[in-house]
Amino acid sequence: MQKTLEFFFDYTSPYSYLASTQVEAVCARAGAKLSWRPFLLGAVFKSAGNASPSVVPLKARHMLKDLHDWTRHYGLPDIALPPAFPMNSMKPDRLGLVADEQGKIAAFTHAVYRAVFVLGRDASEDEVLGALLAEVGLDPMAAFARAASPEIKEKLRANTDDASRRGAFGAPTFFVDETDMYVGNDRLAFVERALK
Amino acid sequence: MQKTLEFFFDYTSPYSYLASTQVEAVCARAGAKLSWRPFLLGAVFKSAGNASPSVVPLKARHMLKDLHDWTRHYGLPDIALPPAFPMNSMKPDRLGLVADEQGKIAAFTHAVYRAVFVLGRDASEDEVLGALLAEVGLDPMAAFARAASPEIKEKLRANTDDASRRGAFGAPTFFVDETDMYVGNDRLAFVERALK
Repeated sequence: MQKTLEFFFDYTSPYSYLASTQVEAVCARAGAKLSWRPFLLGAVFKSAGNASPSVVPLKARHMLKDLHDWTRHYGLPDIALPPAFPMNSMKPDRLGLVADEQGKIAAFTHAVYRAVFVLGRDASEDEVLGALLAEVGLDPMAAFARAASPEIKEKLRANTDDASRRGAFGAPTFFVDETDMYVGNDRLAFVERALK
Repeated sequence: MQKTLEFFFDYTSPYSYLASTQVEAVCARAGAKLSWRPFLLGAVFKSAGNASPSVVPLKARHMLKDLHDWTRHYGLPDIALPPAFPMNSMKPDRLGLVADEQGKIAAFTHAVYRAVFVLGRDASEDEVLGALLAEVGLDPMAAFARAASPEIKEKLRANTDDASRRGAFGAPTFFVDETDMYVGNDRLAFVERALK
């Protein structure tokens, strides 16, 4: 039976960005279904009593080096952290769910991550987000309006609570068939093994 | 020119245990020199303002699952955390340095890790440590006496300070040729790439 990979991510998380460049290929190789699930990482941290690695200065410093090791490994452009890092991700997260309603969450996610972690832009800004929505063929005004609706707000809360309830404490978090949890871009090889 | 891998580890760290099962093969494949450097993880955490992942309950719970994923990946026996986990590692760390003086640090380290993470024993206890020393051909009484000497105490402090000074915030921590730092058993593939 076909397995499902749930990919919980947040647009402010650089390791989620790294994973986003691989998850489609992982699922294609494994013949698995991919479910893109934006969630609010800040709320996940809070609910778990966890904190961003970047609150420890030596970790923050090393994170940049480690991200370079990964982009080199994956053959991606160098990481460029936005000046506003960590960025408020509420708006792009909600817009991700709007894009999902239009079957465009993969394209929108790749566009946001490229803007944030390759071009170093601040995707909490409407101007940046509007251009990204247009880039993937979504109507910016309609998308912003939909993102402010109670349904979308509730959907983001539901994704976040769903992940927390199942034990998430950071991002990216993966679930294979609901219960088998993997944490971190660096566990994608295990995810792929579990999907096969 | 031959490269050197410094492997900073602590006998209470399960991810250091995982790495310890691989580092010799990594260095052999890369033609690199391996330097086993026990350090006091608690002091490294403190100096970095960091804490053990196990202080976050959801992380601690997931860590066990993740360790099983790794032992399966490496073909190792199941992890059995000792009842006293996290264990006070001062004594085994110092004895590791004594074993190093006798050219037996690899054998002693494998023996300690097997006792702790396969058999679930408490390697802060003299009885357990005495048996492990004897197992690798060291005289337990002489080794305990040497471990209590100012030279060995100072050596452990020096290893710990050396790693902290270069940016370590957890274990295992690897340095390739002094300055190129990698953190975590899950970065061994990057370590091997850097050694080649």
